[in-house]
Amino acid sequence: MAEHYSELSIPHRLLLGPGPSLVHPRVLRAIASPLLGHLDPAFLQLMNEIQEMLRHVFRTQNPFTIAVSGTGSAGMEAALVNLTEPGDPVIVGINGIFGARMATIVERCGGRLIRAEAPWGHIIEPETIAEALTKTGPVKAVALVHAETSTGVHQPLERIGALCREHGALFIVDAVTSLGGLPVEVDRWGIDACYSGTQKCLSCPPGLAPLTLSDRALAVIRGRKAPCQSWYLDLSLIADYWAEGKRAYHHTAPISMLYALREALRLVEEEGLEARFARHRTNGDALMAGLGALGLTPFAQEGHRLPSLHCVLLPTPVEEGSVRTELLQRFGIEIGGGLGALQGKAWRIGLMGESSTKADVLSLLSALEDIFEHRGLIRRTGVAVEAASRLYSSPTLQRG
Amino acid sequence: MAEHYSELSIPHRLLLGPGPSLVHPRVLRAIASPLLGHLDPAFLQLMNEIQEMLRHVFRTQNPFTIAVSGTGSAGMEAALVNLTEPGDPVIVGINGIFGARMATIVERCGGRLIRAEAPWGHIIEPETIAEALTKTGPVKAVALVHAETSTGVHQPLERIGALCREHGALFIVDAVTSLGGLPVEVDRWGIDACYSGTQKCLSCPPGLAPLTLSDRALAVIRGRKAPCQSWYLDLSLIADYWAEGKRAYHHTAPISMLYALREALRLVEEEGLEARFARHRTNGDALMAGLGALGLTPFAQEGHRLPSLHCVLLPTPVEEGSVRTELLQRFGIEIGGGLGALQGKAWRIGLMGESSTKADVLSLLSALEDIFEHRGLIRRTGVAVEAASRLYSSPTLQRG
Repeated sequence: MAEHYSELSIPHRLLLGPGPSLVHPRVLRAIASPLLGHLDPAFLQLMNEIQEMLRHVFRTQNPFTIAVSGTGSAGMEAALVNLTEPGDPVIVGINGIFGARMATIVERCGGRLIRAEAPWGHIIEPETIAEALTKTGPVKAVALVHAETSTGVHQPLERIGALCREHGALFIVDAVTSLGGLPVEVDRWGIDACYSGTQKCLSCPPGLAPLTLSDRALAVIRGRKAPCQSWYLDLSLIADYWAEGKRAYHHTAPISMLYALREALRLVEEEGLEARFARHRTNGDALMAGLGALGLTPFAQEGHRLPSLHCVLLPTPVEEGSVRTELLQRFGIEIGGGLGALQGKAWRIGLMGESSTKADVLSLLSALEDIFEHRGLIRRTGVAVEAASRLYSSPTLQRG
Repeated sequence: MAEHYSELSIPHRLLLGPGPSLVHPRVLRAIASPLLGHLDPAFLQLMNEIQEMLRHVFRTQNPFTIAVSGTGSAGMEAALVNLTEPGDPVIVGINGIFGARMATIVERCGGRLIRAEAPWGHIIEPETIAEALTKTGPVKAVALVHAETSTGVHQPLERIGALCREHGALFIVDAVTSLGGLPVEVDRWGIDACYSGTQKCLSCPPGLAPLTLSDRALAVIRGRKAPCQSWYLDLSLIADYWAEGKRAYHHTAPISMLYALREALRLVEEEGLEARFARHRTNGDALMAGLGALGLTPFAQEGHRLPSLHCVLLPTPVEEGSVRTELLQRFGIEIGGGLGALQGKAWRIGLMGESSTKADVLSLLSALEDIFEHRGLIRRTGVAVEAASRLYSSPTLQRG
């Protein structure tokens, strides 16, 4: 039977979809390190370092700052099922797939879902949350997606954090597509639970969900009337493994993935958060200038567009799936298709972490120009790259 | 801040604890391959291959044979929360930590727990299950641990599988510490849901839980009255990602971990299951012969001892923690301590996958002899190695 399966051979890819993003060679070297036991003192030291670096990226002092042993969706579920008890009213902002997923999870753990909606592509207005808080009476939590991967919307959070404090509600934030690529200010914005994924702006392989809880949130979890419905994601138990001095066995940590995360976080530290954010902004702006020259238009509301994930509408003559397949097959470039109602009508292009460089932007635009010209969609190549290049050489951006 | 964290530097370890086991260099090379998108055709092909190889190791034809995106405990939770609806009676065999964990999860998802108990170190007698089935009336499922990592007990399953069929109950089996190291006959034994972990006898890093469901189990999940309480582990949704032809996005698969699993499974195929099982038996027997010469005694009931995980009681003068620390610090060898009531009184030694070789057994025994002699616990070194060597050269084993 063995002869059926050849040696692993991965085709070359430029990953510019909604994740995973490209991974730095140093991270790939780290993930291939020999295993340590999950209770080995040498491994526990690495966990300490990961926690410190995660606190820095989340901009928090929260002692409870860990990596959940699952992908970003496991982080979402961990945050929601631990903080929601049956009957608890929870306001969820729904303006895309990931807000809707939060709502599903709140319902599955018996929470009383209060929907705060906006059309896809729009932010949830702070007023909508204020109204919901005023109408509903005391709520357990408000849950919002910071970076909506299905629409490219960048949700403002600061005012809503203040509203939550005023109303005594916990503030839960999905930072899957923002952490490490744009500011996520856990402490300053009054966020009580914030989770992310490793395979986006942190440029680590998928499989871990960084998560931080305020002391207030941890106290709520420790004071639950009934245990959390999930044993695997029970943060009161997981806390005892990540707590220095305790390190009580809960489940076997994904050792290799944690090696990778540590190295990815070292790279973030070396670059510096501000420089990293500026890089994401510049490349995002250049991409949008180039795509605009090809007739593609941003889906998200102006002034609230992510630098890390660009959802763009295609002009009618562009065959979405066919162009995307050609991009993958002829150029080895991956981008994502639209989700939900945007299927067949939009692309989702990620410029995250190692996948946010000038070279990547120009490669993608050149490839698109080539395909568009062959298909008679544009008259000459060069327009998109020129538009992006103008943006790269603009003096405003130099200061970015 | 970056200067605080040095380049990753992993001390040399011989991993002979309850997991993770050592990982083959080919697996480490595979895990370090560049990322692919989780919907890339090249990646979907790898998933097909992983599914085929997992079916072979599980000895099943089940189309639903996948790797859950979490560690073995996530596999346990996935199996139980998907198959148990509130009020469902579920018989759980409890004779160690992992049976007790199954019981906890059944309770957390609202199942009516029926305990089938045996003292730690003993198997759950088929008669105990038969009685519980007869007394209780129709039950939804019977759940047992095949290889109890806390006690070293090897649970017989075949007769219980037949009992489950007679009574129309689903049969759920935890094969975390057995899959790939000793026979797990999913189809022949009538198992409906079987899960494992990658970091034991498959010798892949921790982070995935191989899982297989019979068509009967899948039909039960698809026919649930209410959705499964976990969204992340909802197997009816995950089925649509793993099903060839569907591949509907659920969550981002842990790409790198799946590269590693594929390579680990290739190594299993190359060795052949029978040869692999024989290797585990031989090395297990040799280890026990050697440990016996040092005065250590097996904890598990005779005739029901695992070849992959050895739980041994220490004679009173041996200071458990201190010897184990010395083993790690002076020899770089990791073994596990006892859990629960066995804490401070027992060791758990894993000989799993790449960590089950003659060299490993002799290294461990020599190191223990050295420590024991220094501490005046034995008069001369050599006794344990000699006992093991005699076993390796015995003609019965040659046929093993």
